[in-house]
Amino acid sequence: MSSTNPNAGAINLDPWFGHYAERASGLSASEVRALFAVASRPEVVSLAGGMPYVRALPEDLVSNALARVMRESGPVALQYGSGQGLPVLREQILDIMAMEGISASADDVVVTTGSQQALDLVTKLFIDPGDVILAEAPSYVGAIGVFRSYQAQVIHLETDADGLVPEALAAGIARVRAEGRTIKFLYTIPNFHNPAGVTLSAERRPEIVRICAEAGILILEDNPYGLLHFDEPVPSALRSLSPEGVIYLGSFSKTLAPGFRVGWALAPHAIREKLVLVAEAAILCPSSFSQLVISDYLSQADWKAQINEFRGVYRERRDAMLDSLEEHLPELSWNVPNGGFYIWVGLPADLDSKAMLPRAVTELVAYTPGTAFFADGGGRQNMRLSFCYPTPDAIRLGIRRLATVISGERELLETFAGTGRLTPSAEGDSVTAPPPDLS
Amino acid sequence: MSSTNPNAGAINLDPWFGHYAERASGLSASEVRALFAVASRPEVVSLAGGMPYVRALPEDLVSNALARVMRESGPVALQYGSGQGLPVLREQILDIMAMEGISASADDVVVTTGSQQALDLVTKLFIDPGDVILAEAPSYVGAIGVFRSYQAQVIHLETDADGLVPEALAAGIARVRAEGRTIKFLYTIPNFHNPAGVTLSAERRPEIVRICAEAGILILEDNPYGLLHFDEPVPSALRSLSPEGVIYLGSFSKTLAPGFRVGWALAPHAIREKLVLVAEAAILCPSSFSQLVISDYLSQADWKAQINEFRGVYRERRDAMLDSLEEHLPELSWNVPNGGFYIWVGLPADLDSKAMLPRAVTELVAYTPGTAFFADGGGRQNMRLSFCYPTPDAIRLGIRRLATVISGERELLETFAGTGRLTPSAEGDSVTAPPPDLS
Repeated sequence: MSSTNPNAGAINLDPWFGHYAERASGLSASEVRALFAVASRPEVVSLAGGMPYVRALPEDLVSNALARVMRESGPVALQYGSGQGLPVLREQILDIMAMEGISASADDVVVTTGSQQALDLVTKLFIDPGDVILAEAPSYVGAIGVFRSYQAQVIHLETDADGLVPEALAAGIARVRAEGRTIKFLYTIPNFHNPAGVTLSAERRPEIVRICAEAGILILEDNPYGLLHFDEPVPSALRSLSPEGVIYLGSFSKTLAPGFRVGWALAPHAIREKLVLVAEAAILCPSSFSQLVISDYLSQADWKAQINEFRGVYRERRDAMLDSLEEHLPELSWNVPNGGFYIWVGLPADLDSKAMLPRAVTELVAYTPGTAFFADGGGRQNMRLSFCYPTPDAIRLGIRRLATVISGERELLETFAGTGRLTPSAEGDSVTAPPPDLS
Repeated sequence: MSSTNPNAGAINLDPWFGHYAERASGLSASEVRALFAVASRPEVVSLAGGMPYVRALPEDLVSNALARVMRESGPVALQYGSGQGLPVLREQILDIMAMEGISASADDVVVTTGSQQALDLVTKLFIDPGDVILAEAPSYVGAIGVFRSYQAQVIHLETDADGLVPEALAAGIARVRAEGRTIKFLYTIPNFHNPAGVTLSAERRPEIVRICAEAGILILEDNPYGLLHFDEPVPSALRSLSPEGVIYLGSFSKTLAPGFRVGWALAPHAIREKLVLVAEAAILCPSSFSQLVISDYLSQADWKAQINEFRGVYRERRDAMLDSLEEHLPELSWNVPNGGFYIWVGLPADLDSKAMLPRAVTELVAYTPGTAFFADGGGRQNMRLSFCYPTPDAIRLGIRRLATVISGERELLETFAGTGRLTPSAEGDSVTAPPPDLS
């Protein structure tokens, strides 16, 4: 209850302060959270969120599925179900994963409340306080939040245009182990990385798998975007190369709709058995209703054609963003993602993405500062721009506004040059729990 | 990887054995799990599950809500939403809680994936390994499972026909603290207790609240059944007596349908802030779709009349069970619950509910052995009988079969009297993760 505790603010008003678990001490709201609340106003062009463009999904496809489910399986849809998930849906999930070269048994699939819950369950199952999780630099803000909530330490590894760098992985493993610390798994997003936009090359995949297998390190492969490719399909999943060494996570949030909260984990059998137990402890069972609706959609609708529709929508938006960046912000650097939702932008060394965000919101444009994607305070010279949700016109408007923001910021920097103001601090960012639109 | 590890079986086939978190060591499937798989065959009368009778809910009430949600809010229903839950639903939840004397702000409500998830989040937020949670004897199997998954120790407190005994609570607090251990909260189900069937009397409520307040112990009040009373409404919620000292959990699983997986927590404000952060880490946000459907149902259907329908259904089933017990098993003891789903049955001292279960399943009747509801191996002289799901005729058939089981078991006991066989062992039960139908 002491007001001298740095987390407590001037006066602590929480009568239960001091009663929380140790792991709760790392819990704090993101500093950018309040800004995003402002950024959700309709006049702001948000290039910050990770919301799929669900309006591209014909509503009758969903409405028809809903009506059929109630007509044909109402009492089952309304009831508790299996903790592992509906067998019929787990079979259908195998068909989806087969598109990425995965051959598996439905008995090794666990349906979860979005793949975020699978991240939570895997972390709960493996992480003791202080354990190390290896991850790309940068990495998904929501994963960093879960890992921190179980007191893991995330060590970022170098990532380039071909994804995670194998030599950096090998060196990272050696370095962490030399410090006597325990690595529990490698967390990786091989396809259309969030936020980096890059895809792990086909050449590197067996190498990453080999390095982990030799070191006895489990791989947690998170793949929400793999089917949303704009050109060639992605290389085969890491799971296809190492059935016993990989837990694979998939999701319907980006290829159908996030509102149902349905994702899954495919795990080596012994891990899967434990995952079901922690899943049941956490929620008893996933929603029968949501699962039946998705199962019906998969069996009745042409879901592959629908994914193709989504690809077209997002490809057009990516192109609008790339063209606008070229036109209005040629002094920045960026990659060209071949799928997914995100472009990772590098800023000139004098700019700080986090410090600049309030100005951006004032100019009615929002982005996610790079700091959200590092557990160690990095990322101030980067921002993530999302092209998934706004229309191409809105994207072009947003990039024009961003150009205004950046030129204004640079004028200010020149005015104050040498005064020491506006110097980026080395302080880390709070990313424990992302607002959902950061997903 | 050693095959000499007692948890490993003869040969350990899990290549990741030794990599799990310490908390995973307590994870094991319930021993009765396999039996319940058998018990789900249609020819078995299951008095074991906690499944509500969703067929009593007119399907058009749900179908109409689904159609309206898609027509009026399709893109919102399909999208990510707030991590705390939809504001409109949180307001409606206040109306429900007002029926139990609770006055609160919608800002202090967190919508969860069933109230089971709220149990998980509260436990994650408060429990360090070895912390003590006080609970009734017996207590909800799913809560014991969550508590164990975070390495809490559950201490059971004496419970009688009027619910938790205040003197036992005071003595328990003193005893645990004298041992130098930390009590994090009291977990209690004040209304139509699962599995004990009892309701905490109006007289005891302020006393329980006062004892906890004086000792600085938080109360976790779990109330899925309170509105399902057969006679008088239940006394006011503990939360109504102590807004700052109670986290209250509610659910739509029993008053509407569990298939949507929607429950909630109402917490003191500072705890609520942290709960939202752990909720977002766990699942980003609850299902927008499920929330909108329930919100529409609450605003368009006569939900209070529907709850009254449910009361009638369950009252008739309770009566069928009580009459059958009286007729066929007068040598047993039981309570008369005034609401909810369960009757708690006491067996004569020579019978062991867990040892007897295989015989019961052979005779095509299932129940839940009392051992599932104790963290300390107790409960062999008890069983939980559920009257929620089977029809009155099925209940009567089930109780007749149970009478056959018990008379067969007693004959066997007499045959083997003095040989030492069939003696109940003192070994505890594994209840970490209940099959969903135990909820």
